[in-house]
Amino acid sequence: MSNVIIERIVALRKEMKEAGVNAVILPRTDAHLSEYISNHWHIVRYLSGFTGSAGTMVVTETAALLWVDSRYFLQGAQQIEGTGIILMKDGLPDTPSIVEYLCENLHKGATVGINGMLMSIDETASLRERLHKSGIRLDVNFDPIDRIWADRPSLPADKVFVHDVKYAGETAADKIAKVLADVKQKGAEALFTSALDEIAWVLNIRSNDVPCNPVATSFLYLAPQGSTLFIDSAKMTPEAEAHLKEAGVAVAPYDSVLDFLATVPADVNVLLSGSRASGAIAHILEGHYVKGDSPIAMPKAVKNDVQIAGIRAAHIRDGVAMVRSLIEIERTVAEGKHLTEIGVADILLRHRSAQPLYFDLSFESICGFGANGAIVHYSATPESDTTITKGNLLLIDSGANYLDGTTDITRTIAIGTPSEDMRHDFTLVMKGHIAIATSIYPEGTRGAQLDALARMPLWKEGKSYLHGTGHGVGHFLNVHEGPQSIRLNDTLAPLTPGMLTSNEPGVYLTDRYGIRCENLVLTIPYEETEFGKFYAFETITLCPFDRSLFQTEIMSEAEIEWLNNYHRTVYERLSPELTDDERQWLAAATAPLTK
Amino acid sequence: MSNVIIERIVALRKEMKEAGVNAVILPRTDAHLSEYISNHWHIVRYLSGFTGSAGTMVVTETAALLWVDSRYFLQGAQQIEGTGIILMKDGLPDTPSIVEYLCENLHKGATVGINGMLMSIDETASLRERLHKSGIRLDVNFDPIDRIWADRPSLPADKVFVHDVKYAGETAADKIAKVLADVKQKGAEALFTSALDEIAWVLNIRSNDVPCNPVATSFLYLAPQGSTLFIDSAKMTPEAEAHLKEAGVAVAPYDSVLDFLATVPADVNVLLSGSRASGAIAHILEGHYVKGDSPIAMPKAVKNDVQIAGIRAAHIRDGVAMVRSLIEIERTVAEGKHLTEIGVADILLRHRSAQPLYFDLSFESICGFGANGAIVHYSATPESDTTITKGNLLLIDSGANYLDGTTDITRTIAIGTPSEDMRHDFTLVMKGHIAIATSIYPEGTRGAQLDALARMPLWKEGKSYLHGTGHGVGHFLNVHEGPQSIRLNDTLAPLTPGMLTSNEPGVYLTDRYGIRCENLVLTIPYEETEFGKFYAFETITLCPFDRSLFQTEIMSEAEIEWLNNYHRTVYERLSPELTDDERQWLAAATAPLTK
Repeated sequence: MSNVIIERIVALRKEMKEAGVNAVILPRTDAHLSEYISNHWHIVRYLSGFTGSAGTMVVTETAALLWVDSRYFLQGAQQIEGTGIILMKDGLPDTPSIVEYLCENLHKGATVGINGMLMSIDETASLRERLHKSGIRLDVNFDPIDRIWADRPSLPADKVFVHDVKYAGETAADKIAKVLADVKQKGAEALFTSALDEIAWVLNIRSNDVPCNPVATSFLYLAPQGSTLFIDSAKMTPEAEAHLKEAGVAVAPYDSVLDFLATVPADVNVLLSGSRASGAIAHILEGHYVKGDSPIAMPKAVKNDVQIAGIRAAHIRDGVAMVRSLIEIERTVAEGKHLTEIGVADILLRHRSAQPLYFDLSFESICGFGANGAIVHYSATPESDTTITKGNLLLIDSGANYLDGTTDITRTIAIGTPSEDMRHDFTLVMKGHIAIATSIYPEGTRGAQLDALARMPLWKEGKSYLHGTGHGVGHFLNVHEGPQSIRLNDTLAPLTPGMLTSNEPGVYLTDRYGIRCENLVLTIPYEETEFGKFYAFETITLCPFDRSLFQTEIMSEAEIEWLNNYHRTVYERLSPELTDDERQWLAAATAPLTK
Repeated sequence: MSNVIIERIVALRKEMKEAGVNAVILPRTDAHLSEYISNHWHIVRYLSGFTGSAGTMVVTETAALLWVDSRYFLQGAQQIEGTGIILMKDGLPDTPSIVEYLCENLHKGATVGINGMLMSIDETASLRERLHKSGIRLDVNFDPIDRIWADRPSLPADKVFVHDVKYAGETAADKIAKVLADVKQKGAEALFTSALDEIAWVLNIRSNDVPCNPVATSFLYLAPQGSTLFIDSAKMTPEAEAHLKEAGVAVAPYDSVLDFLATVPADVNVLLSGSRASGAIAHILEGHYVKGDSPIAMPKAVKNDVQIAGIRAAHIRDGVAMVRSLIEIERTVAEGKHLTEIGVADILLRHRSAQPLYFDLSFESICGFGANGAIVHYSATPESDTTITKGNLLLIDSGANYLDGTTDITRTIAIGTPSEDMRHDFTLVMKGHIAIATSIYPEGTRGAQLDALARMPLWKEGKSYLHGTGHGVGHFLNVHEGPQSIRLNDTLAPLTPGMLTSNEPGVYLTDRYGIRCENLVLTIPYEETEFGKFYAFETITLCPFDRSLFQTEIMSEAEIEWLNNYHRTVYERLSPELTDDERQWLAAATAPLTK
């Protein structure tokens, strides 16, 4: 492999030389700045062999480098061995940032090339400014990949389908009208978005372009004078065409988007998101774009009543699949049969995919046993796949996309008898989980204000976790969405009734075990007093927590009561869908705990 | 009064006309952008009659307007009655901002005048940009006040004195060296600061220029080549001159500062704070200043061991003064003697000022009885002064500057038998107070992350308070200081060992009563684990909370234990300083509570 990689880099350098480019930056994203990308966009993987989910490559005339974060220090080093590519460990004090590296290693008058579609407006502006200070030029039109990647996969050609209004709850025409009203409020006359989940939501369309993200690769221009979806014609169907026509949206070829934008009259101000629209788009609209928050992010995050009803229904089916999976895992181990992490993922997939309205997983299941559970972004491979044995914890983080909703649940279960350390740490995590689940907060509260509630029980014992406590969840759409979140760093979007957010504190003991407890919670109105409006979280996920892992002696009465009430709800909602045998298991799994 | 005000505005308009200025903005601050200001700078008061602590006046050719926030809607309206000045209620949806008003009411080509010394770099830049978009010019050199205010008070002439290193813990020379090292780190060669508390801290000097703020009106330029303090020569003493000389700081006249800055060579980059340096200063240094966080804010906030020892000692003396005051208040009421809010403030002043090392109050005492306690920024006047009678709550927020430390404490006490509502609300506030006091948090935690811990018990019952939970406190210096705080909005400065911060949740029931419970807390190291460093708060303030106000039935065992431990500490530290009679009172006031 390493020789192949070296040849590819040589080919890239030839293109650089011809274009007068001294260094190129290759981010791991697509022209829609997506988190998950299709094979067409796996440029970093093609040029380096690195398969991680985050990383940026830089190639200069003399060096090739790969910046990765701490999750990928080990994997990155292994995968680029022998290629001559240098691993840059992002986040370590001695590692320069990409722009620092370029400013130090390029001469004055040099040119850095990027494909301007792969970097946001704000990042491009900041990069240009920093390079400029060192006398280095930025060329945002350097895109030689098609020429050096002979068998590059084409863009996904899966068919678009209509997301029925009986699930979406609102027609595309109504959504467009509301979005355009907000665009006007923000001082613009039109909106351009390249964010695939935004396009899918506003147009009520879906496809199968990105693993676990039911989106259709496209760009969208919305304006009162007429709206256009830029999409590969191979993806269209008569139904989809008719649906878009009804919504007042014309269809144009995917690759005509830049030419189209160049024809937008200079007196039409186009709203762009600084973080989700690319520098190349902004460049074409220079002088007549307005940078602002996306007018789609909030209405997409705030679910309507039809969506909420669908989300509740999907969680009953997902809960049934989870219960059946937990029973099967428990019995397989009890019977002494061989079971591995990948086997657990297979069980989950089998039970989920048997449910009505199932479409796909919402992300690749994470099943980490023992020490593997302590690796936060663990994904079992045939090499790492570990057999489930008694005496440790199994962490299962999984979810699905159903036509009526998206699920995301983590359960940590004891295989055999858990140690007191495991039970203690599990209970600390659950105390944080319950603190979030039971919090009440006034209108305007941001998730970052609540985050410490989830962490305090761990902090008091010198423990912590570094990931966020909660992320927004889409509706039959991406499992990660904004604008709200519950995490250490502030986000300005307030928690608003109708928002679906995860509640997932955890703790990870290196080389021992990992614990995470995740339910989805819906922000709902709670009460209105002389002090204003107050909101609460309603827990939507339905699946028991492992009773054997609770140390009730460190729980308050209120915490035990919350757990017992939650378990009662789980039993009430799921038991009608279960067989007698399963119902009996669930009754035991949800029996009240006492001090 | 109203005719006098009208004449003053006429005189101002004459100056505006001569200078070709169509509108003037008059902020209520000084050339140091201070929160508390000396009489010389009470321009808004002179021109409007309004005496509140915040407000901005705007005078155009045809209108005079005063923007005030909700605290001053009533007082502002009363004080400007008959002057023709229009009250602008800031924060209401229909009230335009000052710049919106100017853009709507001035013609294209008009000029807005300000004294550029009274507005920060960032505010000036934002104002200029907004006006520019409407074709309006900004003149930052319009300062006609001396000409229209015949008997304008001069700048304070109180003598400067040296803050002994036995209290400060570090010499001025050492502080300057450290600050300049940080200035260099930030890419600059010199520092200019107009912030009076920063100057007082770095030079170990104090004065008496601003009520309750022991600062000396001055500007400071620090550079490796030589540093200069710009200060009125009348304020200097031989001791102070010798002290500054030893620290390597020259002295120059206060009003020579702008001329001096104009002579700083263009190759010397001067560090300025965007929020605490004025637009006029930046204008002079245009092209060779660096905008950055103040390099003084953090070392000033992080107290050294000598300061911490002083702070502890000052809190014992302040606790003794508080206990004596509480006893006197209790006995005066018990004996049926007449006592008013101002009388309570007098008692506090008498006991505090009798303490060794007492210098001044750290802010004007807030004593609010019953409904007055529900007015968050209440200050008793002869007109509002209310008699203390049985059956309601008395809120006392007070503090002092001692040579070895600054105090700030709030106690809410029951006069007579409190109602169950009062006890319930008081206990909710204390649950929040205890949640902050007992929190443990990892290195890097910002106060905004902890803020909700203090509010959650209230939020769960549909109650809240809108002020911050905590502010930084200076050392024999301003009672409000940054950069840390504990509040709803995020501040980026992490809570760092050595920082002194207030812990003051409250709740305010309009027309009924107000409750606030405030101690100062010191951030201290707690433990270091495989997850990193963890910090805790040590409560520094020493004074009992009113035992009659606790509803122990809604408190956890841990909360009751915290309270009993705190009260034990209060007794142990204060009792050696008290008379037998006082000690007996304190023993009862700190006796353990049980469920």
